[in-house]
Amino acid sequence: MPDKEIRLPQLQIPRVVILGGGFAGLKLARKLRSKLVQTVLLDENNFHTFQPLLYQVATAGLEPDSIAYPLRKILKNKKRTHIRMAKILEVKLDEKVVSTNIGDVRYDYLVIATGACTNYFGNKNVEKHALPMKTLTESLDLRSLILQNFEVALNENNLEERDSLMNFVIVGGGPTGVELAGALAELKKHVLPKDFPDLDIRRMEIHLVEAGSQVLPAMSEKSSANAHKYLKSMDINVWTDTFVKDYDGETVKTNREALKSKNLIWAAGVKGNIPNGIPEDALESGRIRVDAYGFLPGYDNVAAIGDVALMKTEAFPIGLPMLGSVAQQQGSYLAEAINSRIKGKPVAPFVYNDQGTMATVGRNKAVVDLGRFRFGGLFAWLTWLFVHLMLLVDFRNRIIVLSNWIWSYVNFDRGTRLIVRKYKRE
Amino acid sequence: MPDKEIRLPQLQIPRVVILGGGFAGLKLARKLRSKLVQTVLLDENNFHTFQPLLYQVATAGLEPDSIAYPLRKILKNKKRTHIRMAKILEVKLDEKVVSTNIGDVRYDYLVIATGACTNYFGNKNVEKHALPMKTLTESLDLRSLILQNFEVALNENNLEERDSLMNFVIVGGGPTGVELAGALAELKKHVLPKDFPDLDIRRMEIHLVEAGSQVLPAMSEKSSANAHKYLKSMDINVWTDTFVKDYDGETVKTNREALKSKNLIWAAGVKGNIPNGIPEDALESGRIRVDAYGFLPGYDNVAAIGDVALMKTEAFPIGLPMLGSVAQQQGSYLAEAINSRIKGKPVAPFVYNDQGTMATVGRNKAVVDLGRFRFGGLFAWLTWLFVHLMLLVDFRNRIIVLSNWIWSYVNFDRGTRLIVRKYKRE
Repeated sequence: MPDKEIRLPQLQIPRVVILGGGFAGLKLARKLRSKLVQTVLLDENNFHTFQPLLYQVATAGLEPDSIAYPLRKILKNKKRTHIRMAKILEVKLDEKVVSTNIGDVRYDYLVIATGACTNYFGNKNVEKHALPMKTLTESLDLRSLILQNFEVALNENNLEERDSLMNFVIVGGGPTGVELAGALAELKKHVLPKDFPDLDIRRMEIHLVEAGSQVLPAMSEKSSANAHKYLKSMDINVWTDTFVKDYDGETVKTNREALKSKNLIWAAGVKGNIPNGIPEDALESGRIRVDAYGFLPGYDNVAAIGDVALMKTEAFPIGLPMLGSVAQQQGSYLAEAINSRIKGKPVAPFVYNDQGTMATVGRNKAVVDLGRFRFGGLFAWLTWLFVHLMLLVDFRNRIIVLSNWIWSYVNFDRGTRLIVRKYKRE
Repeated sequence: MPDKEIRLPQLQIPRVVILGGGFAGLKLARKLRSKLVQTVLLDENNFHTFQPLLYQVATAGLEPDSIAYPLRKILKNKKRTHIRMAKILEVKLDEKVVSTNIGDVRYDYLVIATGACTNYFGNKNVEKHALPMKTLTESLDLRSLILQNFEVALNENNLEERDSLMNFVIVGGGPTGVELAGALAELKKHVLPKDFPDLDIRRMEIHLVEAGSQVLPAMSEKSSANAHKYLKSMDINVWTDTFVKDYDGETVKTNREALKSKNLIWAAGVKGNIPNGIPEDALESGRIRVDAYGFLPGYDNVAAIGDVALMKTEAFPIGLPMLGSVAQQQGSYLAEAINSRIKGKPVAPFVYNDQGTMATVGRNKAVVDLGRFRFGGLFAWLTWLFVHLMLLVDFRNRIIVLSNWIWSYVNFDRGTRLIVRKYKRE
């Protein structure tokens, strides 16, 4: 379908083309002034994904509709805003054109907000056999695999094989890995023994593998230590200073012990999801380097925001962290900047307002770093719940998620553990 | 994996193997006395599907977890009851063995409750290009296709092609076809114009094709006429005395006009989902003929219940209808019958208690036949809502479905219209 233009109204105002409807792109699309610009938002999906809760979809705590929201619905009252489901093939910065699988689109401003994707650091075997958890479908695949493996274990006569089906190795001690390990531990404790009385669920092992010397390395010493303590209390095997060397689908080889497991979940790294056509000299550490205004070196009409962008500041000399809060702030900022530029007003550089970080491990157990405050336990857990609820895009999502959480909390249960589509390795 | 036995505890009491966890099989499994028998429930899925609401999943009104429920959770307090995810390969009635993809299982009693599957009446072209809606995955595929086709239409320059993407032909004027047509009409009226302001949704056409002389042929004259009136009022093209002769994915050829549409939904017929190995002489009209006790001719330990079974009675000389209420009653009856036989007590033949039929068309519009009473409109609609809510398997499902319905009713909206997995024709 090349050589075709995407069908769009032709207007006399500048056209902003946004690649990606994540935290950054969506915030930008919402904040651009529709009197000043025509907005075209391109995404492979017709929905926005609230990535921080993907692990709850993977562990059967929430359904997709709780953490995903149709882009068309979010932007339905926004005039001169056009959403198209499209796969980006190439950006042609010199022609001011983006090529996609449904046709080309010309732009006056291009904003790259394509986020991050899983980074296996070149380990092909791990890439082939491990499971990532970066998208909604990957989370659903992971859920299917977890549940299927218990079904298969039921019928496995060989004890070692059976254990291997029930063992989990999570690689990466960041928030995703920690939260996923905690959720699996709760499944093991409260849900699986009831679902599978014919299996000895006590034999199930959960391993969390972290290459650094502590879990949650980006958080404070105190929070890392608390998280470690919580994980241990939930019977999770925490392996620090440990890195995965190889995996054949059966045995996880590390620099220390080998772990037998058919379930390796990879949460150990991400990299910028960089579209084809970005000049080599704009790339650094797997992201697109931008100036203090979010623009690419040498291009005053091409910006990058969110996880894919590498913006260095005084406080963050290696670049701002890949966090939803950075992405949202950059989206807001850039909308304001583009609005101002079109009106001929001056634009100040982006300033990041650090809103802290947090991670939850389990029931009543979380850690929060908020400026000078570092706290854990029940109050941190409630803070985590409240903040995540408020970050959800819509009132309806919030109600559903809150109901699910209350249900799970009161009943020591999970909502749903349907294998809607069986997972098949490709 | 043949020549292997499914791993199960070996007990000294009779083993009942149930094929299928639908209305019939599930009811049976719940009602069998676990002191008297060991129960093995085999199903391809790990969940029970509430089929009457599949059309709401297909039209983005409900999510899978609202109408599906994990079998393990339903049966978790039932002792000596074993659920295995398995695909039936063959029943070997003379050896008292069922072969599955995970191994063989011996039985003392076999109950076939495999339900019904879509019947294309031998039309290969229709089977290839039309979409069925009999399982949860098929409903999700249908939802993806509907939403995807509107996305594609957005970018289609040819008006005729665009219309073809937005037109729907539903074949079959039974409850499924009527309810689906109504739900699509509501999407057209309230949801799609907001989601796709760049499309002229008024051009979307919904056709309901029925081979008989009226819609809902199994219901009373009055209810059929009411349903017809409601469908017309919702701008649905109702084609009675019309049957589909061919379909190539573009044009639906009928005995009357040809209809251009890329969306043909087949709700025109079902047939028994008959496992391999059933003797030819037990088959009749695509179902398994059973006696007044639910057993196969010549086998006092093999029964069939639900849609797959053909049980003739005085009131239903061509066989009891394929309805959830028949299936549930037969499941209850057979449990009681098996319990009694094991205790040496006499067993009376099955008696069907007709609980009426109903169908909903849209907001405040439904028809109900209940004994001598035939009514339509708001009261029928509320009856439909109440009955379907109560039929849902679990308190949690009921709450979620009710919340979704209230939300949709108040906001003239649908909950979710996510394309979680893109539909790809095989």
